[in-house]
Amino acid sequence: MKDNKPLPGWKNKLHEVIYEADTPSGKFFDIVLFILIIFSVILVMLESIDDFDEHYHGTLLTLEWVVTIFFTLEYIARLISIKKPLRYVFSFYGIIDFLSTIPLYLSYLLAGSQVLLAVRAFRLLRIFRILKLVKFIGEASQLQSALRASRAKIAVFIYVVLIVSVILGTLMYIVEGDEAGFTSIPRSIYWTIVTLTTVGYGDIAPVTNLGQFIATAIMILGYGIIAVPTGIVTAEFTRNKKDKNSEDDDEGYLVHVNTQACPSCGIEGHRDDATHCFNCGHPL
Amino acid sequence: MKDNKPLPGWKNKLHEVIYEADTPSGKFFDIVLFILIIFSVILVMLESIDDFDEHYHGTLLTLEWVVTIFFTLEYIARLISIKKPLRYVFSFYGIIDFLSTIPLYLSYLLAGSQVLLAVRAFRLLRIFRILKLVKFIGEASQLQSALRASRAKIAVFIYVVLIVSVILGTLMYIVEGDEAGFTSIPRSIYWTIVTLTTVGYGDIAPVTNLGQFIATAIMILGYGIIAVPTGIVTAEFTRNKKDKNSEDDDEGYLVHVNTQACPSCGIEGHRDDATHCFNCGHPL
Amino acid sequence: MKDNKPLPGWKNKLHEVIYEADTPSGKFFDIVLFILIIFSVILVMLESIDDFDEHYHGTLLTLEWVVTIFFTLEYIARLISIKKPLRYVFSFYGIIDFLSTIPLYLSYLLAGSQVLLAVRAFRLLRIFRILKLVKFIGEASQLQSALRASRAKIAVFIYVVLIVSVILGTLMYIVEGDEAGFTSIPRSIYWTIVTLTTVGYGDIAPVTNLGQFIATAIMILGYGIIAVPTGIVTAEFTRNKKDKNSEDDDEGYLVHVNTQACPSCGIEGHRDDATHCFNCGHPL
Amino acid sequence: MKDNKPLPGWKNKLHEVIYEADTPSGKFFDIVLFILIIFSVILVMLESIDDFDEHYHGTLLTLEWVVTIFFTLEYIARLISIKKPLRYVFSFYGIIDFLSTIPLYLSYLLAGSQVLLAVRAFRLLRIFRILKLVKFIGEASQLQSALRASRAKIAVFIYVVLIVSVILGTLMYIVEGDEAGFTSIPRSIYWTIVTLTTVGYGDIAPVTNLGQFIATAIMILGYGIIAVPTGIVTAEFTRNKKDKNSEDDDEGYLVHVNTQACPSCGIEGHRDDATHCFNCGHPL
Repeated sequence: MKDNKPLPGWKNKLHEVIYEADTPSGKFFDIVLFILIIFSVILVMLESIDDFDEHYHGTLLTLEWVVTIFFTLEYIARLISIKKPLRYVFSFYGIIDFLSTIPLYLSYLLAGSQVLLAVRAFRLLRIFRILKLVKFIGEASQLQSALRASRAKIAVFIYVVLIVSVILGTLMYIVEGDEAGFTSIPRSIYWTIVTLTTVGYGDIAPVTNLGQFIATAIMILGYGIIAVPTGIVTAEFTRNKKDKNSEDDDEGYLVHVNTQACPSCGIEGHRDDATHCFNCGHPL
Repeated sequence: MKDNKPLPGWKNKLHEVIYEADTPSGKFFDIVLFILIIFSVILVMLESIDDFDEHYHGTLLTLEWVVTIFFTLEYIARLISIKKPLRYVFSFYGIIDFLSTIPLYLSYLLAGSQVLLAVRAFRLLRIFRILKLVKFIGEASQLQSALRASRAKIAVFIYVVLIVSVILGTLMYIVEGDEAGFTSIPRSIYWTIVTLTTVGYGDIAPVTNLGQFIATAIMILGYGIIAVPTGIVTAEFTRNKKDKNSEDDDEGYLVHVNTQACPSCGIEGHRDDATHCFNCGHPL
Repeated sequence: MKDNKPLPGWKNKLHEVIYEADTPSGKFFDIVLFILIIFSVILVMLESIDDFDEHYHGTLLTLEWVVTIFFTLEYIARLISIKKPLRYVFSFYGIIDFLSTIPLYLSYLLAGSQVLLAVRAFRLLRIFRILKLVKFIGEASQLQSALRASRAKIAVFIYVVLIVSVILGTLMYIVEGDEAGFTSIPRSIYWTIVTLTTVGYGDIAPVTNLGQFIATAIMILGYGIIAVPTGIVTAEFTRNKKDKNSEDDDEGYLVHVNTQACPSCGIEGHRDDATHCFNCGHPL
Repeated sequence: MKDNKPLPGWKNKLHEVIYEADTPSGKFFDIVLFILIIFSVILVMLESIDDFDEHYHGTLLTLEWVVTIFFTLEYIARLISIKKPLRYVFSFYGIIDFLSTIPLYLSYLLAGSQVLLAVRAFRLLRIFRILKLVKFIGEASQLQSALRASRAKIAVFIYVVLIVSVILGTLMYIVEGDEAGFTSIPRSIYWTIVTLTTVGYGDIAPVTNLGQFIATAIMILGYGIIAVPTGIVTAEFTRNKKDKNSEDDDEGYLVHVNTQACPSCGIEGHRDDATHCFNCGHPL
């Protein structure tokens, strides 16, 4: 029973602002957060350019502190405005939020390694949460459902591609040898995938006649089999469209869900007419 | 009421020749313009080849003057044969026309920079106006409508590709470091997109085992996700075809439009049976 | 009336053997010709490898003489076994046949240039005539009709790709300059198409930050628009299949044609139940 | 009659464990085999890395002996638990099994060549047998049937691509010559296929203006024709899906088969309700 007790007023308010995007203040918060994330990722990029970092190190550090302090406050606000903080802390986005906040502090404790700073680029992952809240989710979910339906076939496809790559890579290792850059089987497999996917860096390239002949065969193979994932996904998209039009849809039907998050467990995607959380039964 | 007054005879005649392609003289004007545009772009290309420019600089300059004078006269004619010259001047094609005419004059005022001359290549954009007037517009508009319908899904797709590129690029920056050419995060992102799109220059290529392993994963990912835009567009094309055959077309129907331009506002695409401009109501 | 007079017996027999594939001897002739063409093309390839040519020049020349003499005899036989030799001489395959026969003779008159010998590789074009006669033509004609139906759309597509390449190539020429290999606008356009089609040699690659940024945009554009021709052709294939099943086919219907060639004008593709040539009216 | 006599009890038991995946012990055996195959392929890869092999040669050799002994025992068990051992020995998987087992023994008889050891990587082919037994065969067989139906069209396509490559390759050989790397016609053909399939290593790249112009044409051609195999396979996938839904399926219908192998001839894929082998009539 305790769990179903509504949050106190100000916490409830904070929860709405931070976790939802239905109210004006909630939308404003999301936009600010969005801008700050993009801004902080650009900071990381600029810092990685040696020339730029040398000249503007002080400015970049100051700006990084601004972002870090905002993220720290936000993290604390997220913790206190939810009923089950621990569940949030160990959720996917909870961990991402934590890792987005911590690097600058850590760089003072540890010898500030390059790695630690670059980790901040993963803040970009936070963007997916905000995007979840906005309207173009509809298009994305169509893409997702088509990809999910093709998942098993694509897995089989990638699996076969990998086995074929190992076998052909080994063959090229035997044929070409060290001079051409095929110094080990893993490196030959790397080359085979570079070729099969039509990327073709040219850092390693066959020099013998037989090697070039096999390479040619691999390319035509790669050129042909690129049709397979395309065919799978296209068939799925075409089917998807038809399903939406057909009456006898045996895979359930679509309802409009909103961005309201359960104040107890934080789960989203409730039907517009929902009165209880579909996950924990908490009243909405 | 003043606006609806027809243009004087000779201006009307000029308007027909320049802006429309229904009369023989209008068609002839378009063909001459088409040839001159192509010719002037070839001039620009030849000029950019140092060897060629050295030997034939005089000839190239003379021919460029011919083109520039024709374009100047054409620009003036366009201005005086339309009722609302200002609207034309600030329209997309008005600006393109102006930029196509001006560079040679400017090169005498300013120190003739390479940039200024190369800008002339953008004259090619003018071709799209002429193409708008000819018949293969039908095929183009089918392509366009399929692409427009896929727009939102393709935007989501590109958006996800970009975010994934930033994250994977940062990862490669951490893994590979400076020796392999991954000197900054923006450069690593550049490499990631080169790989993901299967372009693969090879100017930057991973050298460590872990880097090559991640590169392999990126390639297979890229190879797989190329199926997504293809699937989207194909599904749209297939649907498009069906819609055209089906009776219950809820997106309106197609009528034949012609290349006649409104003498007042210059807009095109009037129905064959139209008597007034659909944009400004001016009699046609 | 003279034209409709049947050929004398032995000429008729020769015509059947050379131009048709219905009789055992006609089939045998085609197979021999097929093998000789492939064999002669392999000869040309081997001759082009300097090491190989040095050691076996005599053997290669002898074998080339065997092929040339056979082709000469065949060319003469084709001339005498057809009623209108001139029409054959100036037909597409007549010219190819002539060019396949002549190079070795010419190499004694002219200083034997490399070019002349390499021309012999175009003998491969003759293979298409033989393939026309055999059964897998059915599959090929399905491919052809799908491609023909997509022709206009693919032309529009390639047209737009070319214009975009010229504009983006010029932009890269302005941005990158000579050091990175963008020495002229044509070369920049070459680079743009290398990038847009995801080939990516890496012989020219952008080095400035702005150049790499634009390159990235071009790649994603290229990655996206590859979906367009695929979508067009796929939609055509899908439609093709349906048309074949549907009763109300408004584009005519298919009949079985055979490989019999008209003894007068040499045209092929007569209906099985045809008694006169559909082209010249000569009795079959 | 002799053939239909059931195997003695322990042989029958062994047959079930090794050849089938229905019983717990059969499943366990397959999993062990799967892990050992992957493990042995990883061993081969590590051995091919010179640095790694130097430090851990002893360990790698010991582990290789473990794998070889297991494979030897398994090969003997397969021989004695089947009624017609010779048919197994000369079957595809029989030969693969033999080649997987023999290399280490041979390396003591022959001077242990690199080739011999690398052959062990082909053990990976054995994995396909195990995969045949598990459930994701359903997805794979859908892929297979779509590819099989497209087979003839894809063959025509690859055939045309090859002929076009030979002709264009020869053209480039004439145009570019030795300096750019087009040293022989086979090498030029190699380059043409590298370009046509959009792989683009850049080890050979055109340097003359005409050569770059032809290269551009080849790229656009390659970019366009990649649509063809994709269109073929996609149309097949789409058709496939429809066939499954339609009632009047004229290509038979699907039944559930299991992984039980015939104890006499070893064939798999019997219907669940089968009582006799569909291949040799032996009772199951």
